[in-house]
Amino acid sequence: MSVGGFIPLNLKAVTGIRIGTSSTGISQSLRDDVSVFELVEGTKVVAVFTKNKFCAAPVILAKKHLSENSPRYLLINSGNANAGLGDDGILAAEQCCKALAEKTGLDENQVLPFSTGVIGEPLPVNVLVSGLQAAINELAVDNWLSAAKAIMTTDTYEKGCSQTIELDGEQVTITGIAKGSGMIRPDMATMLSYVATDMPIADSVLQKMLKQAVDVSFNSITVDGDTSTNDAVVLMATGRAKVNSIDTVEDPRYLKFLSALTTLCCSLAEAIVRDGEGATKLITVQVEGAESLADAKEVAFTVAHSPLVKTALFASDPNWGRILAAVGRANIKCINVDVVSIFLDDICIVENGKRSPQYTEAQGQIVMNQEQILIRISLAQGSCSAKVLTCDLSYDYVKINAEYRS
Amino acid sequence: MSVGGFIPLNLKAVTGIRIGTSSTGISQSLRDDVSVFELVEGTKVVAVFTKNKFCAAPVILAKKHLSENSPRYLLINSGNANAGLGDDGILAAEQCCKALAEKTGLDENQVLPFSTGVIGEPLPVNVLVSGLQAAINELAVDNWLSAAKAIMTTDTYEKGCSQTIELDGEQVTITGIAKGSGMIRPDMATMLSYVATDMPIADSVLQKMLKQAVDVSFNSITVDGDTSTNDAVVLMATGRAKVNSIDTVEDPRYLKFLSALTTLCCSLAEAIVRDGEGATKLITVQVEGAESLADAKEVAFTVAHSPLVKTALFASDPNWGRILAAVGRANIKCINVDVVSIFLDDICIVENGKRSPQYTEAQGQIVMNQEQILIRISLAQGSCSAKVLTCDLSYDYVKINAEYRS
Repeated sequence: MSVGGFIPLNLKAVTGIRIGTSSTGISQSLRDDVSVFELVEGTKVVAVFTKNKFCAAPVILAKKHLSENSPRYLLINSGNANAGLGDDGILAAEQCCKALAEKTGLDENQVLPFSTGVIGEPLPVNVLVSGLQAAINELAVDNWLSAAKAIMTTDTYEKGCSQTIELDGEQVTITGIAKGSGMIRPDMATMLSYVATDMPIADSVLQKMLKQAVDVSFNSITVDGDTSTNDAVVLMATGRAKVNSIDTVEDPRYLKFLSALTTLCCSLAEAIVRDGEGATKLITVQVEGAESLADAKEVAFTVAHSPLVKTALFASDPNWGRILAAVGRANIKCINVDVVSIFLDDICIVENGKRSPQYTEAQGQIVMNQEQILIRISLAQGSCSAKVLTCDLSYDYVKINAEYRS
Repeated sequence: MSVGGFIPLNLKAVTGIRIGTSSTGISQSLRDDVSVFELVEGTKVVAVFTKNKFCAAPVILAKKHLSENSPRYLLINSGNANAGLGDDGILAAEQCCKALAEKTGLDENQVLPFSTGVIGEPLPVNVLVSGLQAAINELAVDNWLSAAKAIMTTDTYEKGCSQTIELDGEQVTITGIAKGSGMIRPDMATMLSYVATDMPIADSVLQKMLKQAVDVSFNSITVDGDTSTNDAVVLMATGRAKVNSIDTVEDPRYLKFLSALTTLCCSLAEAIVRDGEGATKLITVQVEGAESLADAKEVAFTVAHSPLVKTALFASDPNWGRILAAVGRANIKCINVDVVSIFLDDICIVENGKRSPQYTEAQGQIVMNQEQILIRISLAQGSCSAKVLTCDLSYDYVKINAEYRS
């Protein structure tokens, strides 16, 4: 299942990035499951990773390599998360990086490893390494779509988009792909996503941009509240566009580029929620008038995680009492229930803490029948707001997660 | 659906408590949906209520009445929660209390109101009041089972048990009933539960006992993480047993009575989880070696709430990586993943933060096939522990909550 809605692919090449994929059998299907990204020398790379304390071996190693050297390759496998395996997992990830480094004549710590799939099963290093040469042989600038497919697990479609903006009279490209469908409640990064641009940008500026873009995109979605051990978002800037580098956040081009990057990340994040396991509806939970950003996020995520709200959405049942109950249990500092209002799209269902006198169930039913629904909650306590995207909880969520081992 | 296991009913009368029930149609079925408890003069009454900020009108009014006067009646309806209605809800609850007070010649604030059912629908006061006389006419000491039935909503069976203990050579009785199946994640009280004893106990001691018993019973269960607007546990002591009152916590009989009360509350709490919406398995999540009680509870509830863990349990899939991932995302202060161990019953699946070398999937499968499963997590950081009861997440959870309006 997935919620309809066109996701732009038509992925544009980014000068300086070549990609190759191959099928090794790690994912126990015939599809490609290993991706290699080659980054031209001088590419700036920044990343954010899962905050799960049981983070996977490739997450630990990628962080280490990032701190030691300039990455020239990303090595990504689906079908196995290489998580929950202790030192054996680290060793396995190291062996994979080493194999790719040997084939490309680089240092081991110039390879960043990423894995996604089943937790706790030993990574079949030999199987993965056996597919490296085939992926290297495929390296080409126009293989973004192949990579978008090769990183999928329970995803039902590939997710990617491109943005082109004009800076200093030059066309600059940003292209990104992502995967994710379940175990989605990013705590800072999410699932796997790789975004590249040819725009020259200084390291520190790039890191700041990534954090800002991720906060309102990948960090504002949830499918099931479960944070993965393997989440990572990587942003690469090859610097091959013929414009001057953005070296400070004061550069007037900073905001323009950030805006395009954020739009792209939001598209990818929305694509993940639309493809949420078992999803039949795309739900936006918007909280306004909170006393703090933390309060706004807490209320939004509490509503977005509520199984009772999510099953009512699946059933198109305007059972707004469940939304009210979820707001009421959110662990926030500042709330006065007597001034809270709740809307389904433009229909006011709760006004000043109680059922709106104008509300009729027929009005609520019309909104609930839609495939996209906005739940808007006004706390009337301050000026902070937050928006979270989520999906409903359907039979198919249970089916997918009862029958499929992720 | 419910998880099998005998729940003792055989409810013993408590001298000083008479109960009557009647069918009014509020619950839109032919069953009894209004219960009246009559408490003999001098009965001490204490209660704990939901912490949901959108607490229902009867919760607000019951707290007020408790602070003003000595309760002589409890008035409970199922089928309508009288929540999310603002002042109209308060007025409705007041009208119901007033009607019962007039019929019994008492003050309005000697009646404690309780409601459970759909949130946000106006309480049909006239319908409820029309059934009061029939309930009063039925008042009898042996109607506990009728009340256990009349307070149900999505429950599939009635929940109640009795304890008899000997104090000072006299038999003392404790009898309790409870309802609850969904929207179960008590934050201090839970759902509805009414417990009575003929033991004379001072107010302050009774309140302390209730808190202690509730912390390890009703406050240590979860079905879906959603906290109701209407939760309440009421403990009544009629004082009619012919023994001296327990007036201080230093009284040696305090612990003996508390132990019996706690056992009874734990039985009722377990009965609620066994009857969790769609439940096919009873899961105990036990966390040991935490640095603080808060850490232990946070880990236990994070695992118990994880939709991925719960669907794997439903599928009898020993997918322990999901447990590890849930532990890793728990928001606790003190964790060293390298010393964490996780057990399914007695089978060690994770040892020192990684897959146990001895573990085989066949071992895990045997445990997962059981109807009752213990997930034991050792953090090896300190000496605090916590235990949470929960159930799995099945198709029927979605079905019940998509098709039934609670």
